[in-house]
Amino acid sequence: MKKRYLLPFLALLLPTLSNAQTASIDRVNPTNWWVGMKNPSVQVLIHGPGAGTLAYSINYPGVKLVKTNTVENPNYAFLDLTIAPTAKPGRVQIIGKKGSQTVIQTWEIRARDNAPKAQGVTAADFIYLAMPDRFANGDPTNDKFADMRDPNMDRANPFFRHGGDLQGAAQRIPYLKDLGVTAVWFTPVLENNQPLTNEGGTMRASYHGYGFTDQYNVDRRLGGNAAYKSYVQQAHAAGLKVVQDAVYNHVGNTHWFLQDLPMKSWLHQWPTYTNTTYRYQSITDPHGAPSDRKVTLDGWFVPFLPDLNQSNPYVANYLIENAIWSVENFGVDAWRIDTYMYNDQPFMNRCNAALLAEYPRIHIFGESSVNNVVDQSYYTKNTIGFPFKSNQPGTLDFVLESAMNDALKQPVSYDGGVQRFYQTLAQDAVYQDPTKLVTFLDNHDHDRFLSVIGDDLDKYKMGLTWLLTTRGIPSMYYGTEILMKNFKDPTDAEVRKDFPGGWPGDKEDKFTPAGRTARENEAFDFVKKLATYRRDHKVLHDGKLMQYLPENGLYVYFRYDASGTVMVASNTSDKPATLPTARFVERMNGLTKARNVMTGESLNSIASLALPAKTAVVLELLK
Amino acid sequence: MKKRYLLPFLALLLPTLSNAQTASIDRVNPTNWWVGMKNPSVQVLIHGPGAGTLAYSINYPGVKLVKTNTVENPNYAFLDLTIAPTAKPGRVQIIGKKGSQTVIQTWEIRARDNAPKAQGVTAADFIYLAMPDRFANGDPTNDKFADMRDPNMDRANPFFRHGGDLQGAAQRIPYLKDLGVTAVWFTPVLENNQPLTNEGGTMRASYHGYGFTDQYNVDRRLGGNAAYKSYVQQAHAAGLKVVQDAVYNHVGNTHWFLQDLPMKSWLHQWPTYTNTTYRYQSITDPHGAPSDRKVTLDGWFVPFLPDLNQSNPYVANYLIENAIWSVENFGVDAWRIDTYMYNDQPFMNRCNAALLAEYPRIHIFGESSVNNVVDQSYYTKNTIGFPFKSNQPGTLDFVLESAMNDALKQPVSYDGGVQRFYQTLAQDAVYQDPTKLVTFLDNHDHDRFLSVIGDDLDKYKMGLTWLLTTRGIPSMYYGTEILMKNFKDPTDAEVRKDFPGGWPGDKEDKFTPAGRTARENEAFDFVKKLATYRRDHKVLHDGKLMQYLPENGLYVYFRYDASGTVMVASNTSDKPATLPTARFVERMNGLTKARNVMTGESLNSIASLALPAKTAVVLELLK
Repeated sequence: MKKRYLLPFLALLLPTLSNAQTASIDRVNPTNWWVGMKNPSVQVLIHGPGAGTLAYSINYPGVKLVKTNTVENPNYAFLDLTIAPTAKPGRVQIIGKKGSQTVIQTWEIRARDNAPKAQGVTAADFIYLAMPDRFANGDPTNDKFADMRDPNMDRANPFFRHGGDLQGAAQRIPYLKDLGVTAVWFTPVLENNQPLTNEGGTMRASYHGYGFTDQYNVDRRLGGNAAYKSYVQQAHAAGLKVVQDAVYNHVGNTHWFLQDLPMKSWLHQWPTYTNTTYRYQSITDPHGAPSDRKVTLDGWFVPFLPDLNQSNPYVANYLIENAIWSVENFGVDAWRIDTYMYNDQPFMNRCNAALLAEYPRIHIFGESSVNNVVDQSYYTKNTIGFPFKSNQPGTLDFVLESAMNDALKQPVSYDGGVQRFYQTLAQDAVYQDPTKLVTFLDNHDHDRFLSVIGDDLDKYKMGLTWLLTTRGIPSMYYGTEILMKNFKDPTDAEVRKDFPGGWPGDKEDKFTPAGRTARENEAFDFVKKLATYRRDHKVLHDGKLMQYLPENGLYVYFRYDASGTVMVASNTSDKPATLPTARFVERMNGLTKARNVMTGESLNSIASLALPAKTAVVLELLK
Repeated sequence: MKKRYLLPFLALLLPTLSNAQTASIDRVNPTNWWVGMKNPSVQVLIHGPGAGTLAYSINYPGVKLVKTNTVENPNYAFLDLTIAPTAKPGRVQIIGKKGSQTVIQTWEIRARDNAPKAQGVTAADFIYLAMPDRFANGDPTNDKFADMRDPNMDRANPFFRHGGDLQGAAQRIPYLKDLGVTAVWFTPVLENNQPLTNEGGTMRASYHGYGFTDQYNVDRRLGGNAAYKSYVQQAHAAGLKVVQDAVYNHVGNTHWFLQDLPMKSWLHQWPTYTNTTYRYQSITDPHGAPSDRKVTLDGWFVPFLPDLNQSNPYVANYLIENAIWSVENFGVDAWRIDTYMYNDQPFMNRCNAALLAEYPRIHIFGESSVNNVVDQSYYTKNTIGFPFKSNQPGTLDFVLESAMNDALKQPVSYDGGVQRFYQTLAQDAVYQDPTKLVTFLDNHDHDRFLSVIGDDLDKYKMGLTWLLTTRGIPSMYYGTEILMKNFKDPTDAEVRKDFPGGWPGDKEDKFTPAGRTARENEAFDFVKKLATYRRDHKVLHDGKLMQYLPENGLYVYFRYDASGTVMVASNTSDKPATLPTARFVERMNGLTKARNVMTGESLNSIASLALPAKTAVVLELLK
């Protein structure tokens, strides 16, 4: 099994090419660039038979070829260009000569547009995470393509493409607006022209998008580049931001450059196939063994996702420029990074710095699935004296996800249950700014939240209340609002079901109140009401958090600023409770009344609160 | 119940005293001082009827009365003195005048002796923790005193004094030397002249020593100051160090100064009795409520242990000077601090700094019983950006205790079992120097280790092996070496049983091989062999630690330096295993043979290791 994946690249490596052979260019990446970027330099990859044997020149005012880099594979050249701010947008001729042969490749430098882009996401936002193939199908003509490696589409098969696309998602922008969402994060949209394979009974599919085969094309089945650009424009017009899901660590094993590897060190190559251990402790461990670290970082995520070597400067430049190109070209607002902790961290810092230099407001938050705040803080700006200092502004808060779930799953106990939630937040001193972490209750790789908490609507409401009122940038996985549930057993596809109503002819349309059951509408309305309140109240964005020690499963925290005070009082026990509030003196001083945000009820006295079992109340405190 | 403890002090507060009344002095603290301390200043507490109404002077070359401070209670004066390095040791006359009355109090300044003191404990040491009342009775004449508040002694009663003393402990110095111990830590030896009380069924005893009633006298039942000084001298003569257990947070409620409180703010006073929550998260929590912090820090540990207000400068000076006096007077080497996290932390820093200024080599390690490394690191020199920066050199490693116990109790699992041990050490980046933490498997407040691990001798040996070979300063609770066991149920006294053989006439004498069962001798010999090896091999003191990711319950780490490499390979599963060692390339490179430290067996090949179930092997690697 191991060699199956490794040897093809090695076999293709270093084609021999006689000097007499005719050279040509079949690909230029980035596919274009812009005039007026803060960084005037760009390294352009040229590929084609013998492309590395050509002598290059450029004769275009303001565009300078600083250096031509050749590598092991003569089919590649890497041109270091600078583009002066005074250069005129237009079609640059890249001229390659070899003896009597001249190859001319046009390459466009564009004017930057004024469309909103890189607006960032902040704690004022509420992110909705959707998997485009499983969310809504707006264009049935792009469901499958006979010339793609996986030419199938079958909604009944969990591994096949289901036909969802960006046009379908765009049609549901009003739905998300109505729900109170302010930003959309799609699982990756770039081309995944991977075959569907069966490895000894394990199906390997790419409908999820994490196996890129071309970083400069959005997958045709999602609608291609035009549909993505259109989606972003429509989202922006509606006041929604867009988060792009980036993958640097690996590519699909049918990626075009794996057919003709530029050099052996383009990938992390191993004598025999080596998988990552998925263990992160050795990275941060001062006692850790370098060999353990190497397997974690350079081992492959799975056999069909070859691991890019980001310490190779050509690879690093390629990935960094693709990130900038994506933001500039599509106008996305924030940047989510897959498998963040398996990347080369010095590369990640360079990459983040390059994005932030061009787009100071962009937010970047990676996926580092760890079980403790020390390891989690390593991957964002932290306050711990690690030898390596991450510059990532945010990170997904896996530790808080686990803690919030435990708080709902576990019974009241000394250090368990809601203490887990409280105690996790209490360790926020490890982060430079914990409000930049992206919080969540579940995601596309985890059991769905509702199933984890035993399909209990009371616990569901309590969890959503926490998500939408504690510190951080909340994100919610699609379908949570309509009570989609499931465990990952037998496959991940169980938690990636089609959103009912997203496909023409669906029997149920849960995008509409009429298509939802009463219970689903109760959930939807709950999320909508709280998300809308959150959206409209600054105190829940950047108000400070103050939390009090939970007692007997009762947990109280406040968000407060000059504009007001919101109190969140949770009873995580299975018995009703009366909570005297005299303890909360710092935050309730002078505030003696309240309005219940969810019910509208006015409370003329808040000296004590009646808290039903498994309930969080959200109170706007009043004088 | 609450007022019972609080009101007596308030009632005694602020006695009225007519100016005409005769004043006198009945107590001076510190009871003496020394010439030639690095800090020439000392604040002397004077107590007696009207002592605060006297006008003080001193006429002694080199001793200067800088200021006389009076406080709310006229029975106290606090004299700020400086003692020049040129002052001659001798008896200083402190002269108090009031009208025609003159009170003369002599107070000695001594020459400093050259006896070893404050030698510190380091990772080269192995600390033995004993509770003097329960360890050995060397002097049956001091078992009880009719003039003390608890005049009883009864070994059959868990709450009564049992008669153990420092003379008995001194007689067992050769036993500890034989075991491979290098330092002794006694639970507190200072006077606990507390009554034995029954609070609604809860017995309150002080045999453990944590309720001081006089910081300048060692409890008479342990032998008094002379016996303690003699113990330290005998220990030093034998090459053992002594760790003193200090308590700053509180005193016994019959402490002499509580009979006549210097001022209301001497204690943390509350409108109604307030216990600490024992919750530490609010101290480090950036979102924590000040009121929660106040209850944790200023709430009383238990009703009969009033909480000292260390932000009162007189209290702070009193405690700091007593610490210095104890080291200088008794010659102890290291300083263990009880309930460290409940103390005022700025005070702790001042106190630590004062000790370290006089005794740069002394080691200080407090008790902060927390469940995570972030909170634990707060109480020692750490690398986290907390607003408060602790200067404590060490701390007791409660997090590692819990992790090592879990590693032995829990089955092999993804993040449980031995992963807990590995993952805890992997977070050592939070400490400036994790080798200064004091490690342990249990203590006088916890269930005994052997019971926790199901009375399993294999697990016992594995745990002791970890304790004696991983990073840190190992400490072991008395009796562990002879398989003393028990859970704390029904009382703490269950884990504080008399050491068999420590009392004249004991039927069994487990201080001797003949008095121990075969299983007990197996345990004793195991600890002795490993502790002795450790004592004699520098690599286990300050050699670096490198640990490898555990796989299938197999966990391997190395200690290494220029002098050699020791490999510790543990099989925590319940099945025998064969461990290929090629993975451990960094540490085994060129080392192809080994000697088993415990069996003496020579291994001519270590390409793979046969590891029986529940076994840790310690190998000295050879070329």
